[in-house]
Amino acid sequence: MTFPFTIHATDGAARSGALETARGTIRTPAFMPVGTAATVKALTPGQVKGTGADIILGNTYHLMLRPGAERVARLGGLHAFMNWDGPILTDSGGFQVWSLAGLRKLTEEGVRFQSHIDGSTHMLTPERAIEIQADLLGADISMQLDECTAFPAEEKTAAESMRLSLRWAERCRTAFGERGDAQALFGIVQGSTYPHLRQESAEGLKAIGFDGYAVGGLAVGEGFEAMCAVLDATTPHLPASRPRYLMGVGRPIDIAEAVARGIDMFDCVIPTRSGRHGQAWTDSGPVNLKNARFAEDSEPLDADSDCPASRDYSKAYLHHLMKAGEMLGSVLLSWHNVAYYQSLTARIRAAIAAGQFEDFRAMLAAKTAAEAAVSASSD
Amino acid sequence: MTFPFTIHATDGAARSGALETARGTIRTPAFMPVGTAATVKALTPGQVKGTGADIILGNTYHLMLRPGAERVARLGGLHAFMNWDGPILTDSGGFQVWSLAGLRKLTEEGVRFQSHIDGSTHMLTPERAIEIQADLLGADISMQLDECTAFPAEEKTAAESMRLSLRWAERCRTAFGERGDAQALFGIVQGSTYPHLRQESAEGLKAIGFDGYAVGGLAVGEGFEAMCAVLDATTPHLPASRPRYLMGVGRPIDIAEAVARGIDMFDCVIPTRSGRHGQAWTDSGPVNLKNARFAEDSEPLDADSDCPASRDYSKAYLHHLMKAGEMLGSVLLSWHNVAYYQSLTARIRAAIAAGQFEDFRAMLAAKTAAEAAVSASSD
Repeated sequence: MTFPFTIHATDGAARSGALETARGTIRTPAFMPVGTAATVKALTPGQVKGTGADIILGNTYHLMLRPGAERVARLGGLHAFMNWDGPILTDSGGFQVWSLAGLRKLTEEGVRFQSHIDGSTHMLTPERAIEIQADLLGADISMQLDECTAFPAEEKTAAESMRLSLRWAERCRTAFGERGDAQALFGIVQGSTYPHLRQESAEGLKAIGFDGYAVGGLAVGEGFEAMCAVLDATTPHLPASRPRYLMGVGRPIDIAEAVARGIDMFDCVIPTRSGRHGQAWTDSGPVNLKNARFAEDSEPLDADSDCPASRDYSKAYLHHLMKAGEMLGSVLLSWHNVAYYQSLTARIRAAIAAGQFEDFRAMLAAKTAAEAAVSASSD
Repeated sequence: MTFPFTIHATDGAARSGALETARGTIRTPAFMPVGTAATVKALTPGQVKGTGADIILGNTYHLMLRPGAERVARLGGLHAFMNWDGPILTDSGGFQVWSLAGLRKLTEEGVRFQSHIDGSTHMLTPERAIEIQADLLGADISMQLDECTAFPAEEKTAAESMRLSLRWAERCRTAFGERGDAQALFGIVQGSTYPHLRQESAEGLKAIGFDGYAVGGLAVGEGFEAMCAVLDATTPHLPASRPRYLMGVGRPIDIAEAVARGIDMFDCVIPTRSGRHGQAWTDSGPVNLKNARFAEDSEPLDADSDCPASRDYSKAYLHHLMKAGEMLGSVLLSWHNVAYYQSLTARIRAAIAAGQFEDFRAMLAAKTAAEAAVSASSD
């Protein structure tokens, strides 16, 4: 037994459904706000829940370094620690070791690395990654430890890296054991931009058997076309009966294109990060509220939204807060962006259910292109 | 006609009551969270209202410089701009010109100063201060423009400064005109630490006639004893029938002592500023959540509080957020502190109504002294 996953509607390869976890239902396609260090940056759990988010992300790498996984366990686990009672998926830390840590040494056993916070040395193995996620943090969904293949990668390097991740996948599966419908474990497809390596990875994971399948190694600079090509080469080889998760992606248009290729779950730092820096997301792309043209704009970001941040404050006020360096500006824009992403996936689910997903996808592509044209002409 | 002010109970010189403004009732003694730049720092208006705050403060100096008073007016006034529909009191900017502005030149006419933001030159006169506050920002309660006498001040300097503020008080009163029960104007008692100057100032303001009377020029380094002495020399000369407001004060114990001397209203940056820096206020004083002793403290700041920030997060989590530099730490501690200050004034009001204010004051003094003793012995 694992978390039941029900597909309610399909439209082409796009599908909408529900993943039933012990802590609640995740409506898919789902966007998971990123709560790296046990907080979705700048937002209270109540604000995050209010946007409609069913699940959030936590990060093994950050939490094992600070405050420490054993400490979180002593404090009752990650849910109690951060006051979030819904499902949590934890990233295994593989990506962050590669992008953030200092000196690191990769072996078959695992990866030894230096903390970017205090330089202390730590070891992450497949077994330790599972212990941290499933036992200490208490994640509802744990991710296998993988090696995040550098981009670009030679085919030989990409193959070796992907096969190491596969061996780690098997060790993670063994370490995780059988947890019934209490907790789930996802595997991660690697293989860089090589279709046959992606297929080999997907088939290998399927043979091991996971509760869900993630596509990793993207959003690393490969670009929109390459991302779409990798998805085209990957999702057909993943079991249709289990959720598919595209890690670290992305812009609204990336999400729509990935949904069109059968992806069910997403996470990305874009909404919170760009919010902190003064950007508000719309169907046409990000808008920079620091821009002087908003100084006297009395309209809210979205008068029809249920989110107070989108509905109850003028752009002029948000402009003022960002210019004055006021924390509330970052709070409100992060809040708006998380709400926007939840609204985006809600509209995607509704479009799939209505058999109108292609229209929605085309609308988003057209708006993004139109805005890009305007931006280019005004540079 | 002005805002009705009703005293419901007295206990010694302490009194509890209600000031009825056009935008709602202010329960007194009242603590007004400071919203300098059109935001109570780090908090949404909903969070502030949820703490029980009846009124907040805005600042003429900051708002005239950024985003500009005329701009706020074009955007519908300060209430609409910042999405706060309750009463707002605006400080006249006198204090901030002295503490923040660059080069400044004081004349009988007013004060010319340089913006601390961009060095631009501005003029603040009594008439302009009223125009900004009452007409452009739309404050429910405006403050007269005053000169904030430097501390310490020679008697002659203090007398001249106080008399200039009195002449400005008269000009403010004239500029404000008659506004019925729509808006109110408060005068400000100056006179440094000289009892006869404080009395002269109070009598002068009373002769002009204001809707409320503030005590200014304190919380400038004079110390606890001197503050109490100034209040002893001042409040008996203010009309009992109108609210008395002690500007910029202070710690909980300062507030209790001022209430004991007949003060009804307070504002102070302490709760939000110390929250941003990791301190949580309690009856015993501030507690630094960054301290390692909280790293595994699973208790919340106040399990019995109605405020989510005080009730729903462990000290260990707040410790983690502050150590990790997470914005949510500043948000939650600011929120807790504003709620603590509202709880403080609520308990003061209840104690006065029950004839037990002396007990409350003694409890607070004892706890503060005990904590100070512990802190001294652990240094």
